[in-house]
Amino acid sequence: MGKTPNRYIDIDPWKIRETGYHAAESQVSESLFSLANEYTGVRGFPEEGTTDRSLLGTYYNGLYADAPDQTETGYRGITKKVHYMINAANWLKTEITVDGAPVVLSPAVRGFSRTLDFRTGELVRCYRWTSPVGNEIELTFARFLAMDRPEQNYQRIVFRAVQGNPNINVRMSTDFSIVHWGRFNFWTIEAGASLSGRTAMIGALPNGQRLFTGFRLAISESLSTAEFRLSKGIGQAFSFTLSEGTSRRVDRIVQNQVEKAPDTAAGDLWERGMAHLSDQPGYEESLQRNVGYFDHLWNAIDVHIDGDAKDQQGIRFCLFQLAQTYHGFDPKNNIGAKGLTGEAYSGHAFWDTETYGLPFYLFSAPDAAKNLLLFRYNTLSQARERAKELDLKGACYPIATLNGYESCALWQHASLQPQPSTAVAFGIDHYVRNTGDEAFLAAYGLERLIEISRYLLARGDYNPDRTKFGFYGVMGPDEFQMMVNHNAYTNYMGMMTFETTLKALARIQKNWPDKYLEVIAKTGWSVAETTAIREAMDKTYVPYDPETKLYEQHQGYYDLPHVDIKKIPEQEFPLYAHWSYDRIYRNDMIKQPDVLMFMFLHNSRFSAAVKLANYEFYEPRCIHESSLSPSIHSVLAYELGKDAEAANFFEFATRMDLDDFNRNASEGLHLTSIAAAWVNIVYGFGGLRSDGDLLRLAPKLPSRWRAYSFHLVYRGVELLVAVDATKIAITADRELPVPIMVDREKVLLSAGTTVFLR
Amino acid sequence: MGKTPNRYIDIDPWKIRETGYHAAESQVSESLFSLANEYTGVRGFPEEGTTDRSLLGTYYNGLYADAPDQTETGYRGITKKVHYMINAANWLKTEITVDGAPVVLSPAVRGFSRTLDFRTGELVRCYRWTSPVGNEIELTFARFLAMDRPEQNYQRIVFRAVQGNPNINVRMSTDFSIVHWGRFNFWTIEAGASLSGRTAMIGALPNGQRLFTGFRLAISESLSTAEFRLSKGIGQAFSFTLSEGTSRRVDRIVQNQVEKAPDTAAGDLWERGMAHLSDQPGYEESLQRNVGYFDHLWNAIDVHIDGDAKDQQGIRFCLFQLAQTYHGFDPKNNIGAKGLTGEAYSGHAFWDTETYGLPFYLFSAPDAAKNLLLFRYNTLSQARERAKELDLKGACYPIATLNGYESCALWQHASLQPQPSTAVAFGIDHYVRNTGDEAFLAAYGLERLIEISRYLLARGDYNPDRTKFGFYGVMGPDEFQMMVNHNAYTNYMGMMTFETTLKALARIQKNWPDKYLEVIAKTGWSVAETTAIREAMDKTYVPYDPETKLYEQHQGYYDLPHVDIKKIPEQEFPLYAHWSYDRIYRNDMIKQPDVLMFMFLHNSRFSAAVKLANYEFYEPRCIHESSLSPSIHSVLAYELGKDAEAANFFEFATRMDLDDFNRNASEGLHLTSIAAAWVNIVYGFGGLRSDGDLLRLAPKLPSRWRAYSFHLVYRGVELLVAVDATKIAITADRELPVPIMVDREKVLLSAGTTVFLR
Repeated sequence: MGKTPNRYIDIDPWKIRETGYHAAESQVSESLFSLANEYTGVRGFPEEGTTDRSLLGTYYNGLYADAPDQTETGYRGITKKVHYMINAANWLKTEITVDGAPVVLSPAVRGFSRTLDFRTGELVRCYRWTSPVGNEIELTFARFLAMDRPEQNYQRIVFRAVQGNPNINVRMSTDFSIVHWGRFNFWTIEAGASLSGRTAMIGALPNGQRLFTGFRLAISESLSTAEFRLSKGIGQAFSFTLSEGTSRRVDRIVQNQVEKAPDTAAGDLWERGMAHLSDQPGYEESLQRNVGYFDHLWNAIDVHIDGDAKDQQGIRFCLFQLAQTYHGFDPKNNIGAKGLTGEAYSGHAFWDTETYGLPFYLFSAPDAAKNLLLFRYNTLSQARERAKELDLKGACYPIATLNGYESCALWQHASLQPQPSTAVAFGIDHYVRNTGDEAFLAAYGLERLIEISRYLLARGDYNPDRTKFGFYGVMGPDEFQMMVNHNAYTNYMGMMTFETTLKALARIQKNWPDKYLEVIAKTGWSVAETTAIREAMDKTYVPYDPETKLYEQHQGYYDLPHVDIKKIPEQEFPLYAHWSYDRIYRNDMIKQPDVLMFMFLHNSRFSAAVKLANYEFYEPRCIHESSLSPSIHSVLAYELGKDAEAANFFEFATRMDLDDFNRNASEGLHLTSIAAAWVNIVYGFGGLRSDGDLLRLAPKLPSRWRAYSFHLVYRGVELLVAVDATKIAITADRELPVPIMVDREKVLLSAGTTVFLR
Repeated sequence: MGKTPNRYIDIDPWKIRETGYHAAESQVSESLFSLANEYTGVRGFPEEGTTDRSLLGTYYNGLYADAPDQTETGYRGITKKVHYMINAANWLKTEITVDGAPVVLSPAVRGFSRTLDFRTGELVRCYRWTSPVGNEIELTFARFLAMDRPEQNYQRIVFRAVQGNPNINVRMSTDFSIVHWGRFNFWTIEAGASLSGRTAMIGALPNGQRLFTGFRLAISESLSTAEFRLSKGIGQAFSFTLSEGTSRRVDRIVQNQVEKAPDTAAGDLWERGMAHLSDQPGYEESLQRNVGYFDHLWNAIDVHIDGDAKDQQGIRFCLFQLAQTYHGFDPKNNIGAKGLTGEAYSGHAFWDTETYGLPFYLFSAPDAAKNLLLFRYNTLSQARERAKELDLKGACYPIATLNGYESCALWQHASLQPQPSTAVAFGIDHYVRNTGDEAFLAAYGLERLIEISRYLLARGDYNPDRTKFGFYGVMGPDEFQMMVNHNAYTNYMGMMTFETTLKALARIQKNWPDKYLEVIAKTGWSVAETTAIREAMDKTYVPYDPETKLYEQHQGYYDLPHVDIKKIPEQEFPLYAHWSYDRIYRNDMIKQPDVLMFMFLHNSRFSAAVKLANYEFYEPRCIHESSLSPSIHSVLAYELGKDAEAANFFEFATRMDLDDFNRNASEGLHLTSIAAAWVNIVYGFGGLRSDGDLLRLAPKLPSRWRAYSFHLVYRGVELLVAVDATKIAITADRELPVPIMVDREKVLLSAGTTVFLR
């Protein structure tokens, strides 16, 4: 855990700001200053170009390509072709010359600053530059993405002549020629033209998806512009001379239209995009709408921290990026491991969504949580196909995906890790349990639970004397134990999935009989299957020793050679980069919580003594080679009274990327870790537990803070939980219809503030 | 085991013959009629072309290319680039037109026959064809490879005018434009010219290896020829008209020179090749040398079978192909799984060489056996590099290789299967034990044993309380149990390797002290290491239950779900093609012998009762999805008195390819299975046991035969073992210096025949 920060961002409660240009961190800054609005995302790259490292990334949620290469091995059930979110068209491209010399961001600029404001979503970058003939110019680049009308993006450039009368030439274009991963450009240009001041282009991907991206310019004093073409791009060029002390502003009003239905006529897309572009409001008006959006957002989700400015900035940065990446705009979207801030992990969503990502939405914006869960409903048919590919039944959810199909070509993960499917079931239960939204369970939940249980029943098996049901040849969340039998996490989560399914069947049969019959008919579910999953549930083997109170991570785990992880030299981390692949897998070292993970998810099912025993056994064996690991350990450590240890694990939770603890923020932000930071605060310090029959809160004040507060939406009621040294104050906007637990007390919250004194 | 023959080859004790053209089997015939002489191999393809399926394959032992593609995954220790034996230059290419129409082999030909004679190595193919103008011609194509001067190859074509006066045009060339696997041509042409009747070309591979291939023509009546060029080839063309009833013979005398040293000047190679070509004898003279070679060979290796003509032909075909593939010509050669008869398995050699292939050579031609073992000595440095790649010490031998480097990109095999290394140690011990060649052990054995033991010590580990040493995260010979701990085979063979190493250290220290000191110094071997391998040996855990007498295949095997393999529908075999990859690995089904394999290799260490218990437990769980599996089961079944079962396993051992039981002979011959057929007869029926202190013979007469005999070379003495219903007669060419066991009797054989009555 001996990680050190690399901090160059100014501390500020409501923004991040880089003062002075940090050339060595150019690509880290691009990630940190990323903008997104769920529909699209754009890294904070300098649109004018740079002499330094740059990942010029623009992404659209759900725009993807299949890899042109195929997996070499022809074994059945192994993903033949992967797909990935592509680095799409750059609608910010701007080439500037001043007095004939190109202007790009470089260590030669002066007075550099870059600021991203969490209350507006506007990114502003400013510097001064002197042309070869001695004219000094100040350039300000601003941009934002409209949050509520996500097709609308904005760029603003202000040129100011500080000294002399510089002659300025500007070429602003849309460029589809981005080469993804240095290997392929996937775009075919279908249309491109300028018309009544609007310049636009349509590119098509091999899968038939299309992107319209158009812009119009608003220049502070009207100027004539001339269209120009790039190999796969189109733009407008103009020139002007500034007099000393004067400035000129250029706004680019951008309209993006993603069309995922391949059968839509290109003409329709063109008409629609051009029409929207005409109607689109200007920079200022749209920015004001963003201010309103963020006002509303912060009122709903802010975590206020008194006593540590770094943590305060950190958690707000996390929440801002999380809200940018996903806010429930489209039930076909999901949360990629890097969100829309980079193409590492291929834009894929993992089981993190339901386990780490969901709680924030569930307790901040339940409708967004619902849409997030619908992604798996909308991709149920792909999961069914996958189960067939694996010679199984029901629905097997992919380990990594954008479009619902399995996109992980590493069979050892794609075929051996059932946890995406059990996570989907867990997510459904978690949502329904905390919202009471039984209609969702009836309409979108039961069918999935049935198909997942079917898959688990087929994937699992019995030992020879049929006394133990469990999963053979699996990898649990701890990916360092690759192919094991009776992994406790997998077996436990499988058993809980069966239980959830049986309960849902009974509940929907009783309360939604028509829907029940519809789902039974649609899935062909039989009584024999109900019997079979009940037997499997009853006989599920979760290796446990009542003497030691320990769950064995898998059958035979205790017998593995022991590695003292404290003795591994720090320079050998990350292990994947320094140890031979198979060496990692033949000892008792753990990558990330496995037994502790199901104790986190099903927290109320385990006594404190059991949790303590397992924490103390497994934590010293865990090297946390996943950004998701520390937060789970922190939450459990707080629960077990290990406050110092918990604080230690929390140490970089909110600033993982801001301080680049893992030294890979350059590739994009760790979006699911960002979600885990919220979990760490609200479940850790706040003591939230949401897996039982009653919601529980047991807030503590960590010694590093004077006070803090967070918001929860629960059963339609907005709660503000404020904690300081002497009390917990819970403010409800109206009476909560169900009791909750505060510490060990069962309470009914009325409207207004209820204070619990320490 | 329900395999059925597909037989179209005539039964004959000394040849294989196809009578009438079997177009549907065109590619199977190409494999069966393959020629090789260890240096080079050529499939029995029709040099004039065909309308039917054809794999036009010509191979040179050790000529290889690195795959242009790289393994996608960047994990450490995973093979990044594979290499493979390439389909090289076609020196047989012949284009023929008769009366202007091209002649190719097709179902339209008449009177077709194709014969390969085991006593000459000559392949002769003959058919008649009528030209569009009604002239009938008979074509005879013959070829052979010189066995004792393997650079010398020969082709003969005889044209006979049966009816009319056909006009014949012939273009004979050498062609480097072969596209390997339909993807790449690797050759760069460095030289090509015709000079004083010799036409030759040099091609170079990306790794710097080169091939000179040249020819001169000998035509029965002298004719003028004209040089022509192909894109990567060169040839001579000529025309003539035959009068009815006359014939003309064209001999192509071919010289091939493989140059593996990249720094050899092309000029030198050219001079050498051209000079050899001039000196090379003609077709008849060279064929007579081949007859002498095979006379000698059959006198040394023949297995005579009285009572089953199919078995007789089958075993001679096996021995013929084995001798063609490898006869100890070059200690840098090895035996590929398909020999030189096809590019399936990439020409790679596997652990089969030391376990299945070695015994035939050890008891037929000990010098060849020695050279075969030297391959691993000559590639020790590559094995050392491989161990480093895996973060280990010592030498780790590759699972698949041509040049000593690991060429298996499936990490689960390349990183998890230590058996190539333990097989190398076993092979050294097996050779030294049966030849008494201690000088070999001192010069070429000890260093390898040390480095292999070092590797095993590093790859293995102790359980937490340090009571058990063994291998974690391994795959044994049974590749259906992919990543297990304490695999009995791996642990047992590791333990035996330690024992062999400790004994060799003591023996060489005593008998070859200078060599001992040299090896110790060279390897830096320490006393601490001797202590460490002794401790590991003593503590090696081989899971055994004295109650049941069973070895557990690996820790936890008994707990796996049971699959009744008899209930798997026949159409689901081979399982790799019909079951999803991971499905194969999560039950107690076995691919090939694992526990039974170490009981075969170290036969004398186990009591009959133990062997019986394990045979009866594991055999019913084995699906024999390896061509190497039935022979081992057959040998053990004979030993255990299960004669009918043994005969059943032997059923297709000698005719696996001749009758195309696996329906894939089209890809090439199963060379290591061919070796196993010899093992099946000599170890099975003959009861040979060569792993103990004394050589043992315990021949039985299988009910299908009246009598049989086989040859053994042992301690420099040539033995002929002849078995019939009443006796075993062992003829020794001189007195055997050491006793052997015959059945349960210890005997000293004098020169001449000793008879043991039944």
